[in-house]
Amino acid sequence: MENQVFELQYAMDTFYFLVCGALVMWMAAGFAMLEAGLVRSKNTTEILTKNVALFAISCTMYLICGYEIMYGGGFFLSGTDSVASMTDEAVAGVLAAQSAYRSGAEDASLPYSGASDFFFQVVFVATAMSIVSGAVAERMKLWAFLAFAVVMTGVIYPMEGAWTWNGDAVFGLYELSYSDYAGSGIVHMAGAAAALAGVLMLGARKGKYGPNGEVRAIPGANLPLATLGTFILWMGWFGFNGGSTLQLSGINVANEVASVFLNTNAAASGGLIAALITGYILFRKADLTMALNGALAGLVAITAEPADPSPFLATLIGAAGGVIVVLSILTLDKLKLDDPVGAISVHGVVGLWGVFAVLLSDSDATFMGQLVGALTIFVWVFGASLIVWGLLKAIMGLRVTEEQEYEGVDIAECGMEAYPEFTNK
Amino acid sequence: MENQVFELQYAMDTFYFLVCGALVMWMAAGFAMLEAGLVRSKNTTEILTKNVALFAISCTMYLICGYEIMYGGGFFLSGTDSVASMTDEAVAGVLAAQSAYRSGAEDASLPYSGASDFFFQVVFVATAMSIVSGAVAERMKLWAFLAFAVVMTGVIYPMEGAWTWNGDAVFGLYELSYSDYAGSGIVHMAGAAAALAGVLMLGARKGKYGPNGEVRAIPGANLPLATLGTFILWMGWFGFNGGSTLQLSGINVANEVASVFLNTNAAASGGLIAALITGYILFRKADLTMALNGALAGLVAITAEPADPSPFLATLIGAAGGVIVVLSILTLDKLKLDDPVGAISVHGVVGLWGVFAVLLSDSDATFMGQLVGALTIFVWVFGASLIVWGLLKAIMGLRVTEEQEYEGVDIAECGMEAYPEFTNK
Amino acid sequence: MENQVFELQYAMDTFYFLVCGALVMWMAAGFAMLEAGLVRSKNTTEILTKNVALFAISCTMYLICGYEIMYGGGFFLSGTDSVASMTDEAVAGVLAAQSAYRSGAEDASLPYSGASDFFFQVVFVATAMSIVSGAVAERMKLWAFLAFAVVMTGVIYPMEGAWTWNGDAVFGLYELSYSDYAGSGIVHMAGAAAALAGVLMLGARKGKYGPNGEVRAIPGANLPLATLGTFILWMGWFGFNGGSTLQLSGINVANEVASVFLNTNAAASGGLIAALITGYILFRKADLTMALNGALAGLVAITAEPADPSPFLATLIGAAGGVIVVLSILTLDKLKLDDPVGAISVHGVVGLWGVFAVLLSDSDATFMGQLVGALTIFVWVFGASLIVWGLLKAIMGLRVTEEQEYEGVDIAECGMEAYPEFTNK
Repeated sequence: MENQVFELQYAMDTFYFLVCGALVMWMAAGFAMLEAGLVRSKNTTEILTKNVALFAISCTMYLICGYEIMYGGGFFLSGTDSVASMTDEAVAGVLAAQSAYRSGAEDASLPYSGASDFFFQVVFVATAMSIVSGAVAERMKLWAFLAFAVVMTGVIYPMEGAWTWNGDAVFGLYELSYSDYAGSGIVHMAGAAAALAGVLMLGARKGKYGPNGEVRAIPGANLPLATLGTFILWMGWFGFNGGSTLQLSGINVANEVASVFLNTNAAASGGLIAALITGYILFRKADLTMALNGALAGLVAITAEPADPSPFLATLIGAAGGVIVVLSILTLDKLKLDDPVGAISVHGVVGLWGVFAVLLSDSDATFMGQLVGALTIFVWVFGASLIVWGLLKAIMGLRVTEEQEYEGVDIAECGMEAYPEFTNK
Repeated sequence: MENQVFELQYAMDTFYFLVCGALVMWMAAGFAMLEAGLVRSKNTTEILTKNVALFAISCTMYLICGYEIMYGGGFFLSGTDSVASMTDEAVAGVLAAQSAYRSGAEDASLPYSGASDFFFQVVFVATAMSIVSGAVAERMKLWAFLAFAVVMTGVIYPMEGAWTWNGDAVFGLYELSYSDYAGSGIVHMAGAAAALAGVLMLGARKGKYGPNGEVRAIPGANLPLATLGTFILWMGWFGFNGGSTLQLSGINVANEVASVFLNTNAAASGGLIAALITGYILFRKADLTMALNGALAGLVAITAEPADPSPFLATLIGAAGGVIVVLSILTLDKLKLDDPVGAISVHGVVGLWGVFAVLLSDSDATFMGQLVGALTIFVWVFGASLIVWGLLKAIMGLRVTEEQEYEGVDIAECGMEAYPEFTNK
Repeated sequence: MENQVFELQYAMDTFYFLVCGALVMWMAAGFAMLEAGLVRSKNTTEILTKNVALFAISCTMYLICGYEIMYGGGFFLSGTDSVASMTDEAVAGVLAAQSAYRSGAEDASLPYSGASDFFFQVVFVATAMSIVSGAVAERMKLWAFLAFAVVMTGVIYPMEGAWTWNGDAVFGLYELSYSDYAGSGIVHMAGAAAALAGVLMLGARKGKYGPNGEVRAIPGANLPLATLGTFILWMGWFGFNGGSTLQLSGINVANEVASVFLNTNAAASGGLIAALITGYILFRKADLTMALNGALAGLVAITAEPADPSPFLATLIGAAGGVIVVLSILTLDKLKLDDPVGAISVHGVVGLWGVFAVLLSDSDATFMGQLVGALTIFVWVFGASLIVWGLLKAIMGLRVTEEQEYEGVDIAECGMEAYPEFTNK
């Protein structure tokens, strides 16, 4: 009888991880649709190819070495706990883990399947990498991008992930009391740092900035796709933040998970409304793409601490993210940092805001801790990325030819158009 | 040991609510895609903007005052139970609630996180509001629509929601034995009543009805999007109806939830097939948009009582909805009530059918109870909406200028086209 | 107290089935988007209509007679266990089932709602049928296709399903030790066999193969849609394979479910990367449609045994699928078997590979068992389908007229274009 209760707890937490992981996997579709909607039709097949390929590369590299670097475990060859019979030792282990948790032991957690933990973690890697593809869209060589993805998801991300989320790591930012619930810094700002390094190495798209410093709008080809992508990301974020509680099967943790869902939704709503209003004040139009980026900004902003804030505070944190993202997009354009989908603003600038917004509700977090954490992540990811982009530039080149850029990378890289019957050349 | 079982029950019901809530949130994407697919390309950005903004407004207004009006609770400032330690009192409360439920006490329910309940309820508000945006598409001013959304989601819907779904409300339609499981009337017909009031105030699109009374078809620009939207709504409806059982963690309620999933799917299938055949009989074509509306009609029809019918009866209830929706769309066009996506027919006329279809399987429901309930909801929502639309018309105007309507509202309201490279002007 | 634990177990397994079933239902949207993206714009409305209608027909026919043929149960009229009070007998039955399972009795399974089982099974039927619609796209009459769907989902699939997955069936392939976890053969190869019969009866699209044997590429009209469809299928597959464990509520089965999620994702990733590289070697381009088919091939390949392989082996099984699918698509074109979306290669050829890949990790499976199983399924489904297609050809004709094919079947069959404003004739 006692064992049966333990089995139910174990199964429930495992299933919770798997459902949340499936929702985060779904975010890969969201990024793909968002980016495909915001580029021009001549570059759509290529951005789609990058997005599906980076997801597959992320999952494979994290399996081969990423998870090992970040948490240890050696999944790739040995498999996992999937076929273990419930031996007496296994029961004893589960019992001990549950006891430790119930008695409130520090760092104790309820036991669940290791494979479900892997599944949940692996989709985070892909999220970080998806952020990069949008920022370097419409001009970067496909194979150079995929080569970067191999290093980013196999080494760069897992290294900083180990420093932050692996409690047993030799060098832990948590010892500096860096607090980042689901990864405003660890995932989103990290992805944006790699993207920024790429954009600096790559330069702007031809024609984006005029000779007299004017910024030219390059409208996306398919706004329903971009809207769909945003809704997908919004939905997937419930898994992203909700799963990061890491436990479901108790009253307190279940309350926490529910609060995370509620606050995640509230912050996204606040971000969207704030960006819509900010856009209206600046442009006198209801700017859809700003509204979409505002929702994403609200989601990024709440990600570092979605559990503790009241829904009111969560709405405000998201709304601040929505204002910041609009101003950041305009500022980056002034700096001639060309980011076709606004990824650096959404995930980087607002990710940084999210890291510090933790201080508004978590009294254990400190300004210095958040600052050191954010700096460490940024310096590592930006620096390592710069080196990798630099090596790739020397070896194979990062940028397509001017003619290919003009003709569109779809034909040059993929040999097929995304909408062969719709556009008139 | 006993506490652990209670904790599992609590966590399971909380998670069930959150998963179902995430599915209902996903319906917002479904409405957005459906409506974006059924309007013309020149009005697509604007309908997308309306859809994302109304979702954010719904979530924010329900947080600020809607939930308070409907159920009380004061979520906005104080937050919820998310950080409560499991105090002895909390355990005692959970124990008492579980005991009452197990002993079959009337109105007893299993305990779960209040935040999960809020999350599930809030996405229903957005559903009601999404119904309106389609009916008034292609001609209503964006900011007038959003202003209406504030009042609808903050006050009008919560008021009738309190009368029906809040068992503790002063004035309760349940005392009149009005039975509406997941809201054929409370959510869908309510949304349609607000939409009808809007359409009456607004008038038809220019060119929809010819001088000699002829009805001109205005084809939607993107049928794959409309189909995707329908599939999203179909999927999300499993959360909409399935979550409305409000409990999962017992054999009887689990059986009921499973039956709701099965019947919801059966009714949608019946509705689609019936509408496809009805359309073929009338037009000698396999009319895709009628088929899509048939599936949605089946879903709306079963929503008021998805648990009790046999799958056979559920299929028939859905099929009747599928026939009704085709006839209703044709009839509304004869009445020159211009509803570009058929929302009033799908959610209003078929919603009314759903309210009365309860009588086919629920012997406790009465014709008078359902009639009084439906009338109350309609009169309140239609009347209140008419007043609000009227005020907005006086203050800011409801309709775009004739020139803007001709050029398309995308440029006028949003300053950007949805498909800038695809359409030839 | 004991009963409460039983209730939780029952509810958990029921919910697990419903969540997985909802994910599989979502695959219907994936097939619709994939196929709509890969056909030409003039045939898009029709393929969408086929997809939504076949889903509704599948659900209805399986309810009327399919489930009865496959498992017995008589759901249609009597309904199910949904309203059963928890009588003493019901408690006793649940207790007995749980005891048998815990004591390791052969073929024992944990009890759950029968309606949830039906819901999970019914969406598999639709998957099998969805495979057919893509292969016969752009030239088959809509109503002939739907008539075939009635027979396929009501009889042909349930028959072979009974032989394989119903342990109580008179003639059981399991007695020949045919092992097929989630249906590489039973669902995917079966669908492909029906598709192959249809393609043989129907012939190739006009203009696909030139007079001198050359193969002409007919590009799909909307690659973002095809990519979205692939992501949807990828996500839904977690339910497809993950739910096929049939139990969640124990440590061992929860570990197995988690392993299935992990391996399913790994195989899809391996398939995508392998197909991308294979395509590059052959065409010197990053071929998006090959990459998408590679991901699907990886998913199909792992479906017959997603639990036992290590993640490394799962990646390899998927990668082999990715190579096979590219070669198969090229080979089928040489044989002038015209399959616009590659469904026969993805689900048939790779499905066969999946059936034999079981031998790599399951020491109980035998080569002869897998061979006899695969042959039985193929011969039955292919033969029965050939007869049904033949009858339909005689009665109503299978193929649209040459003029309709040239003009596009959208106008001829559905009376509306999918993108009326985008294409220039």
